[in-house]
Amino acid sequence: MSSGNDRISAEERLIARYFSPLAKHHGAFGLSDDAAVLAPPMGHDLVLTTDGVVAGVHFFPGDPAADVARKVLRMNLSDLAAKGAQPVGFLMSLAVPAATKKSWMARFAKGLGEDADHYGCALLGGDTDRTGGPLSIVIAAFGAVPRGRIVRRSTAKPGDIIVVTGTIGDAALGVKLRRTKSLAKTWRLTRAMARHLEERYLLPQPRNALAAAVLRYASAAMDVSDGLAGDLAKLCRASAVAAEVDVASVPLSIAARAAIAAKPKLLERVLTGGDDYEIVLALSPARLPALHAASKKAGVPVTEIGRLRKGRGVRFLRNGNTLDFSRTSYSHF
Amino acid sequence: MSSGNDRISAEERLIARYFSPLAKHHGAFGLSDDAAVLAPPMGHDLVLTTDGVVAGVHFFPGDPAADVARKVLRMNLSDLAAKGAQPVGFLMSLAVPAATKKSWMARFAKGLGEDADHYGCALLGGDTDRTGGPLSIVIAAFGAVPRGRIVRRSTAKPGDIIVVTGTIGDAALGVKLRRTKSLAKTWRLTRAMARHLEERYLLPQPRNALAAAVLRYASAAMDVSDGLAGDLAKLCRASAVAAEVDVASVPLSIAARAAIAAKPKLLERVLTGGDDYEIVLALSPARLPALHAASKKAGVPVTEIGRLRKGRGVRFLRNGNTLDFSRTSYSHF
Repeated sequence: MSSGNDRISAEERLIARYFSPLAKHHGAFGLSDDAAVLAPPMGHDLVLTTDGVVAGVHFFPGDPAADVARKVLRMNLSDLAAKGAQPVGFLMSLAVPAATKKSWMARFAKGLGEDADHYGCALLGGDTDRTGGPLSIVIAAFGAVPRGRIVRRSTAKPGDIIVVTGTIGDAALGVKLRRTKSLAKTWRLTRAMARHLEERYLLPQPRNALAAAVLRYASAAMDVSDGLAGDLAKLCRASAVAAEVDVASVPLSIAARAAIAAKPKLLERVLTGGDDYEIVLALSPARLPALHAASKKAGVPVTEIGRLRKGRGVRFLRNGNTLDFSRTSYSHF
Repeated sequence: MSSGNDRISAEERLIARYFSPLAKHHGAFGLSDDAAVLAPPMGHDLVLTTDGVVAGVHFFPGDPAADVARKVLRMNLSDLAAKGAQPVGFLMSLAVPAATKKSWMARFAKGLGEDADHYGCALLGGDTDRTGGPLSIVIAAFGAVPRGRIVRRSTAKPGDIIVVTGTIGDAALGVKLRRTKSLAKTWRLTRAMARHLEERYLLPQPRNALAAAVLRYASAAMDVSDGLAGDLAKLCRASAVAAEVDVASVPLSIAARAAIAAKPKLLERVLTGGDDYEIVLALSPARLPALHAASKKAGVPVTEIGRLRKGRGVRFLRNGNTLDFSRTSYSHF
């Protein structure tokens, strides 16, 4: 038949070559259709979230393609973890400058596929377009929670303990280091410390291994992506509670401690900077031992940093003084 | 309490002011959380799709903000309609240049909200970021179909009639007119005709009113967004069938007919250009009367344009000759 009218477009070839192999969920139809189909497991709700990245805003244009892919997927996975949801799948929309090489796309798809497998979150569908601007990627990710059990921001109670996972502030320092290499010297960091901070910015470590414990024990939770101070303030506003945080208890990496020792004003950046992709959660003191046990099992450190009270506002206390930040959270606006 | 640490960020204000009022689905939590929750109606699957637009690629930077919002939502709604799904809700990711005015955002949100109400597709959540590039918007939309009943591309059969909704090619001519106003004279168009074509590019009319009939009667379907020739070729490849299209039967607007009469070579652009947002569907001849009755009731015109056969490839026949296009579909790649 008229083969000239049966040519496969460049976009179809791109999808078939790099992304169809990632579409391992039966509802993705191997990306051969316009849409995917999905039903939550029996007795479960779907949890939906979306997060995107733009080159030059959320990552450096020269960052490894595989890490860019992993970063945007992990940003979404972090939201699912904080809501107590198990990953199911995701849609991805790519806007690609004309100069993007096939080899970049191959490495991007490889990184994406590895994380999709690791976290059990399959590609369900997508959209690929040209852009006259910077490369940008948007993911919408879907998880499952038992019906009615999504962990909200708004359900924390006075008396709850405030807990965070991992360490806070590394990525906010890491992105500064990426921009100004000489800061490593100013901050008196070893090469390993500088690399640790930069890698924490490059590649988030979402806490999905702790999601089941968040679901079971947290009275409220959210992921820390725009800075601990600002995100905790959001949780407190949503729950109509006040918080007191003991700054000395906030878990910091060795590298972040070293930088703050050299430049004490970095403490504010650590507590208000973005890109942590940790979880802040509130829970009844009675549940703390169970959370610690789950944390140990999951290999995700958790640290008590303060307490919720009646009232409103978030106080960061250090040596009996309240810190007052010039800004509480990272916002592009 | 420490009010300085309880400031609401500019992004939160933006969301609260313009987008929270659109979050009418209970699972959106008024956009006050990190994620939304959704379960398909009993006995239904969710249908998931995503489509995005970039200023300067999919719309003109000066296009009315309300129409830009409607366009990107409708592109997604069109996919749902073609799969036989009823709209449920959507996630939206916005990447906004610093120079974007609040008044633009207000008009954007108004247009988006009006369409969300009209099509019964509520905002479930989103993400807002700065970009150093052009404004871009990605929507992931969700619909519902009875379990296992999503209308695929791959299930058409030899002997099926090929039907399209509405008219084909208007938007592909409209975008050319937008770029070169003087073409209206070359094409001998009245002002009303030129406006019709431009508006078909500016604002798709997705065929959601026909979705229930597509679900009931189509053996296969997809939306026509990358050009009739290329999209029909995709459907035929997926179904492993051949198609013969009678070019004289392809439904054209008065404006498109006038343009083709003045410049016959525009026919290729009409049949291969993009942005129709119509539905091409295949169905058993026995179901044609029922489809016509549903079409009349829904107010969505449908036209038979050809037939599927055993074999492969798509032939466009005109006066006994097979047209051979230089390209079959619009692709940004």
